[in-house]
Amino acid sequence: MKVFIAGIDGYLGWPLAIYLTAHGHDVSGADLMLRREWVAEVGGTSAQPIFDRDVRLQAFKEKFGKDLDFRVGDLTDYGFVKGLFEEIQPDAVVHLGQMPSAPYSMIDQEHCVWTQSNNVINNLNLLWAIKEVVPDAHLVKLGTMGEYGTPNVDIPEGFFEVEFRGRKDRLPFPRQAGSWYHQSKVHDSNNTHFASKMWGLRATDIMQGVVFGTKIEDMGDDLRLRTRLDFDQCFGTAINRFCCQAIIGHPLTLFGVGKQKRGFLPLIDSMMCLRLAVENPPEHGEYRVFNQFEDAYTVTELAEMVQEVGTELGLDVGIKHYDNPRTEMEEHYYNPDRQHLIDLGYVPTHDIKSVMKETMLDLMNNKDRIEQHIGALVPDIRWDGSRKKSEVID
Amino acid sequence: MKVFIAGIDGYLGWPLAIYLTAHGHDVSGADLMLRREWVAEVGGTSAQPIFDRDVRLQAFKEKFGKDLDFRVGDLTDYGFVKGLFEEIQPDAVVHLGQMPSAPYSMIDQEHCVWTQSNNVINNLNLLWAIKEVVPDAHLVKLGTMGEYGTPNVDIPEGFFEVEFRGRKDRLPFPRQAGSWYHQSKVHDSNNTHFASKMWGLRATDIMQGVVFGTKIEDMGDDLRLRTRLDFDQCFGTAINRFCCQAIIGHPLTLFGVGKQKRGFLPLIDSMMCLRLAVENPPEHGEYRVFNQFEDAYTVTELAEMVQEVGTELGLDVGIKHYDNPRTEMEEHYYNPDRQHLIDLGYVPTHDIKSVMKETMLDLMNNKDRIEQHIGALVPDIRWDGSRKKSEVID
Repeated sequence: MKVFIAGIDGYLGWPLAIYLTAHGHDVSGADLMLRREWVAEVGGTSAQPIFDRDVRLQAFKEKFGKDLDFRVGDLTDYGFVKGLFEEIQPDAVVHLGQMPSAPYSMIDQEHCVWTQSNNVINNLNLLWAIKEVVPDAHLVKLGTMGEYGTPNVDIPEGFFEVEFRGRKDRLPFPRQAGSWYHQSKVHDSNNTHFASKMWGLRATDIMQGVVFGTKIEDMGDDLRLRTRLDFDQCFGTAINRFCCQAIIGHPLTLFGVGKQKRGFLPLIDSMMCLRLAVENPPEHGEYRVFNQFEDAYTVTELAEMVQEVGTELGLDVGIKHYDNPRTEMEEHYYNPDRQHLIDLGYVPTHDIKSVMKETMLDLMNNKDRIEQHIGALVPDIRWDGSRKKSEVID
Repeated sequence: MKVFIAGIDGYLGWPLAIYLTAHGHDVSGADLMLRREWVAEVGGTSAQPIFDRDVRLQAFKEKFGKDLDFRVGDLTDYGFVKGLFEEIQPDAVVHLGQMPSAPYSMIDQEHCVWTQSNNVINNLNLLWAIKEVVPDAHLVKLGTMGEYGTPNVDIPEGFFEVEFRGRKDRLPFPRQAGSWYHQSKVHDSNNTHFASKMWGLRATDIMQGVVFGTKIEDMGDDLRLRTRLDFDQCFGTAINRFCCQAIIGHPLTLFGVGKQKRGFLPLIDSMMCLRLAVENPPEHGEYRVFNQFEDAYTVTELAEMVQEVGTELGLDVGIKHYDNPRTEMEEHYYNPDRQHLIDLGYVPTHDIKSVMKETMLDLMNNKDRIEQHIGALVPDIRWDGSRKKSEVID
């Protein structure tokens, strides 16, 4: 299958190119390489060294014996996207090419507007290019579990049957996203659903949990094939950041009470799920929503698991509560479904501690990189629009 | 009260400036004057002649004995918006400054992307400027009943209590908007709700029905104070277009079965409701939604009323069904609430036929203007992305 990956240089895009190629697919992709700039802008770096595009492409060629078609270009430029699709004629388009950080989008007016216009416009361009060039192609769009927020009822996969004043309908499940970035993903979901209804587009909208891990098996021992791993306040996500903190002896940073519950999944699970979505396209006009995560955990549970694994590895791992820079519920009901992918054959990784262990072992070689950017670990971007470093509250 | 009107040159913005001034408010506003260009682009014109900004301002001064602060500028330029708010220090901001046409947004990729980026960015800029400059100001944002679509259950005002699998929550009512334009309004609603939660902003989100009519009483006999009235396929809305068609002997154009049911309201009701919203601001952090319409009618019912009134005026009014250029339900359940404004004192106009009569009498003087742009009356912009003039199907 010809699969085009938007955002092929990213944390998920790069391993997906390797994973899908290893599974026999014909992969191409594009990236504007902005993630590398954003992380530098906020004082971070990838804990795991990543290589320039030409080195990555050389390593790819050595592994698979063929070139990877990896273009550099801007998805908000419709001429670029349309021209690419005319040339490549993809069967599936996996859209990972967006600005993915909640705190980055909350910095100020400029970052807010840039995030929303970039994400909304590039998703619209992919929808239009599929409609105009490859109407049979299947869009697999990466959304986030964060689109739903934390309602006091179960979270279905996109839609629910509801009874209201004695009448019934199947309606989109209400979204209550918690950052300008998450809101941009809600806008994209709404636009994608609409395009599917109007034009008969085939679309899978993935509400993904938080991903963690350094590698997948298909990368082998070639360090040039590894993916990035961020730990800064903007692009570092919970488990990856905890692992980095554990390694340098920095306390694991819980925000507030620390009972925020979210869906999480190892990198390999994300790859497996995206492959299952690609290989099992919906019908024309079908817009389906997959909740994609291994299981739901509170951040305290995760921190304690990282602490346990770190201690086994001889690390001295503390956990501390910091004042919460975000406006969010710190303790709440959370029970999302995730049946659709399991029906397609997804087998969740059940031993996530072993993935945590592997991640920490990989990162130990790069302790210096984390220590040199230690200032990026503790957040100062606050949801009320101010900047103030979070402090320990217990 | 100091009221800033974004979109002060428009169909609603201009009469609102007059109406609020007549009610003792201190009005200012801004406009980029694009509506005049869009209507010309699609081959239309205002059936009622409208005057240049300087003539309007002169007439305003003659009527009220003071200048109207009416700036020309782009709301997507944050520097412009922020500078204005620093200077003007509004107590309320009424946001009417957007691209408001569903068909215009459906023309092609360029019009779709332009509509969404213009509307989303300028609404974000108003939110940010309120937060940063006038945090006590109240945003009255014009949304549309079209955000809800046509669900098979009653439509509450923004939120509903829902029970799902035995648990309860108060959730945003799901939106199922039917065009790229309507989707942009959903994005704005989501962003505004979020800003209100994060920053304690006071916001009223108006889900307005379709407005019709040529004038309000405060314009007196001065034709320079009249507002625009469009009849083209993009900017002409049902009753106004029917009135124009009746006057030139063109059949009233129903799309498909013609049982699409929507909320409608006379121009004066829109003014009254917006004033009530402005004069009764919500608390800090409160995001309230008003469904704003006189009553709900099928387009067939409205066409028959226009036919009846037109016949009384000696016109020969036919009604014909055309193939529907839109993808929409042509017969459906529709029962929206509209209690919040009534609780604030809104008294709906009950004799809408007299408003139709007044509208037709005003337009009779401008029969030539409509006839000269008759090509813009019947739609050719189709929801599947093609262009094909609709034809009579009965």
